[in-house]
Amino acid sequence: MPIMRNPLLIPDLRELIQAGETGAVREFLDDLHPAQVAEMVEDLGEGEGDAVFELMEPRGRAEVLSYLRDDEQVRIVDKMSPGAAASLLHHMSHDERADLFKHLDEERVDLILPHLAQAEREDIRRLASYEPGTAGAVMTTDYATLPPHLTVRESLEKLRHESPDRETIYYIYVVDAERTLIGFVSLKSLILARPLARIESIMKREPLLARVDEDQESVARKIDKYDLIAIPVVDAAGMLLGIVTHDDAMDILRQEQTEDILKFGGVSTDHEIDDIPYWQGTVWRAVSRRLKWLVILFMTESLTGWVLRHYAWVDERELRLHLWVPLLIGTGGNAGSQTVGTVIRGVALGEIRFRDTFAVLAREVATGFLLGLVLGAVGFLWAFVLRGENVVFACVIALTILGICMWANGVSALVPLAAQRFGQDPAVISAPFISTLVDATGLVIFYTIAIFLLNIVR
Amino acid sequence: MPIMRNPLLIPDLRELIQAGETGAVREFLDDLHPAQVAEMVEDLGEGEGDAVFELMEPRGRAEVLSYLRDDEQVRIVDKMSPGAAASLLHHMSHDERADLFKHLDEERVDLILPHLAQAEREDIRRLASYEPGTAGAVMTTDYATLPPHLTVRESLEKLRHESPDRETIYYIYVVDAERTLIGFVSLKSLILARPLARIESIMKREPLLARVDEDQESVARKIDKYDLIAIPVVDAAGMLLGIVTHDDAMDILRQEQTEDILKFGGVSTDHEIDDIPYWQGTVWRAVSRRLKWLVILFMTESLTGWVLRHYAWVDERELRLHLWVPLLIGTGGNAGSQTVGTVIRGVALGEIRFRDTFAVLAREVATGFLLGLVLGAVGFLWAFVLRGENVVFACVIALTILGICMWANGVSALVPLAAQRFGQDPAVISAPFISTLVDATGLVIFYTIAIFLLNIVR
Repeated sequence: MPIMRNPLLIPDLRELIQAGETGAVREFLDDLHPAQVAEMVEDLGEGEGDAVFELMEPRGRAEVLSYLRDDEQVRIVDKMSPGAAASLLHHMSHDERADLFKHLDEERVDLILPHLAQAEREDIRRLASYEPGTAGAVMTTDYATLPPHLTVRESLEKLRHESPDRETIYYIYVVDAERTLIGFVSLKSLILARPLARIESIMKREPLLARVDEDQESVARKIDKYDLIAIPVVDAAGMLLGIVTHDDAMDILRQEQTEDILKFGGVSTDHEIDDIPYWQGTVWRAVSRRLKWLVILFMTESLTGWVLRHYAWVDERELRLHLWVPLLIGTGGNAGSQTVGTVIRGVALGEIRFRDTFAVLAREVATGFLLGLVLGAVGFLWAFVLRGENVVFACVIALTILGICMWANGVSALVPLAAQRFGQDPAVISAPFISTLVDATGLVIFYTIAIFLLNIVR
Repeated sequence: MPIMRNPLLIPDLRELIQAGETGAVREFLDDLHPAQVAEMVEDLGEGEGDAVFELMEPRGRAEVLSYLRDDEQVRIVDKMSPGAAASLLHHMSHDERADLFKHLDEERVDLILPHLAQAEREDIRRLASYEPGTAGAVMTTDYATLPPHLTVRESLEKLRHESPDRETIYYIYVVDAERTLIGFVSLKSLILARPLARIESIMKREPLLARVDEDQESVARKIDKYDLIAIPVVDAAGMLLGIVTHDDAMDILRQEQTEDILKFGGVSTDHEIDDIPYWQGTVWRAVSRRLKWLVILFMTESLTGWVLRHYAWVDERELRLHLWVPLLIGTGGNAGSQTVGTVIRGVALGEIRFRDTFAVLAREVATGFLLGLVLGAVGFLWAFVLRGENVVFACVIALTILGICMWANGVSALVPLAAQRFGQDPAVISAPFISTLVDATGLVIFYTIAIFLLNIVR
């Protein structure tokens, strides 16, 4: 559940604004986190929100701006003079700034750029040039570096002068004259070290790093796995280009994992499309993302028509059989969805690997057997007591449920593991896909058991 | 996809171990991240893995231990003498240590405890006493504090002496004599401040904080939303009890979000059960988690039997109708799963709120209309060309698909939003639940259209 906004602060703030007490407003905002101020600016709306925004000093404004929704950021920057916009952008973190530029009109960009320093212009252009979904596209360039020969005392002095503009100084990267990454020191180790020690003697060599063209999810997983505050991003030659910070990694993982829900629901996903929030994509785009899978599933599901046609002679003799079809194949789909969800989760958490295939299969079929026993008993009673069918017919229902549960669980255990084996994310195996897959085969199980137990001859 | 392990390092390490070059092994391990060493210890197995582990000095060992799987941690600690185990535990981070104690046998705990200092014993007991799933259960107690009257220079001196044992010193919490939390300073601001400034003059007041009984997901979301490195945990009186760090927040969010896949697959979830990895839970437990939903779904799905019985007279006149039943209701389930996945994601990302209900409904029904047009056309051709049905019958199929897609999308948009309205996590609305819900109603749409267009009279 998203964190509740605090609407209680708004009336207090409104009162201060209307009384014209700008000093008090500033003090009030100063105690809040920029994300909280951003929420208030959004909730207050254009008039008052903008007034609050304008009261803040440039650095605070830049921080708040980066927590606003993309469309709000664009609206505010569009209202400013090019010079004022440039001084705001100057204070933003480098990755946020590059993202904002991507959303601005080209004309607007051409007006603002001349007001920025040459280095800033180049920084924005470079950051915007990386392929979406790569380390380059999510990294920032406002990190701190040190040369290896400095002493700890000199280093702290250097940080004191340069760090106000850095996104993080908790890891400081050690580079040579060519900006090749040769190590890193944490601010903690710098505080603990003797003041006259040289950086090269206290730095950690061979830091964990990311390649600039590496997939953003892989970078975020490294930060997660190794509990890092930031990870350096280098090019093929080992030159330091930027860093990805822990908060960006969290955003990436959140995005990737909510994508898994889409995939599991049977919606195609890709990076470029998924950056677009629910409301910003058009209905046409939603249709195009879903249509492919719906058509594939429709084709697969039409196998059920083929199976039913094949057993049409059985239905002619026992018309009541088809009344049970949706219930029986639906149960298979439900059991399968549960299993595929469980297996996808196990793979995502690294608990299940391909070499465990047989053990997973055995476990899921056993689970299906036990579930099938209970559900089969329910089905038996349903047919025998509620529907007044005879014992043999009730047994057909019960055995079919048992068979379908085992079969559905087995298939649903194997398919995501097979997908992983062939280099696919197991999460592409959706619940609809599994349901569809076991529908036609479930019918075969049903009619086979019925023919045998009810002694139906052609 | 999980990060690849690096099996290439293992042969090098084996060679060094077998040559008895312990100095070289230590140096080799020193350049690696503890998580990497932990992987190697696991991959080398009991004999060699344990040998590598024993070569390290206590602090390094403690770091590596915390990255090992729970069962490996227990195995290693069980093999050690109580005294050696205690000295290892002494160096572990406080939250990891408390977790490990929960997994040890009681007898073993009784042997080790006397070797620990009184303060450590109490710390372990207190951390283990919090309700699972709360801030208390995930927080650690090795954080740094400062009194408000110290100068910056004195503070840095104090940190130098105390910080080697702290999990993070990047945020330092300011407490009064009663340990009540009154503010915090970042290490960055400490480095930037004048050496003679007092902490109370540079600290941020009213820090963002978590209550000790707060749900762990809510705590993790605060860390995520406000880009924090750590958040302080306080009791009802505002006394500082511990901190939750950004890496723990990532673990919590990963766990919560993979749970969403389980829920979406129709498996019941709760905190206590979900801490258990795939392999550690018994098959019985897997059955009990899935059975409830399967039975509920079975009951709901049996509505289809009731609908089919109601329209049995239609089937008697047009036997070919029932051949299309699984395909038609399956398509409704698929369209519905896509929609519910999309809506759940929108809610999870905060893009969709309850007040947007009507807009979401309109959008999803419109999407269903467009999808239904295309799939209906496919269905028409399928019936008319491939199955040789007449035009009117093919129209029944096409219109049913159109109707079912719109209906399924509408229901699937409303149900998760209604769930949220009534205080439920929308992610409890599973793909099987939606499929089941639209199966019976889909049949009503089908038979109604068929009776009308095919002019079937009783």
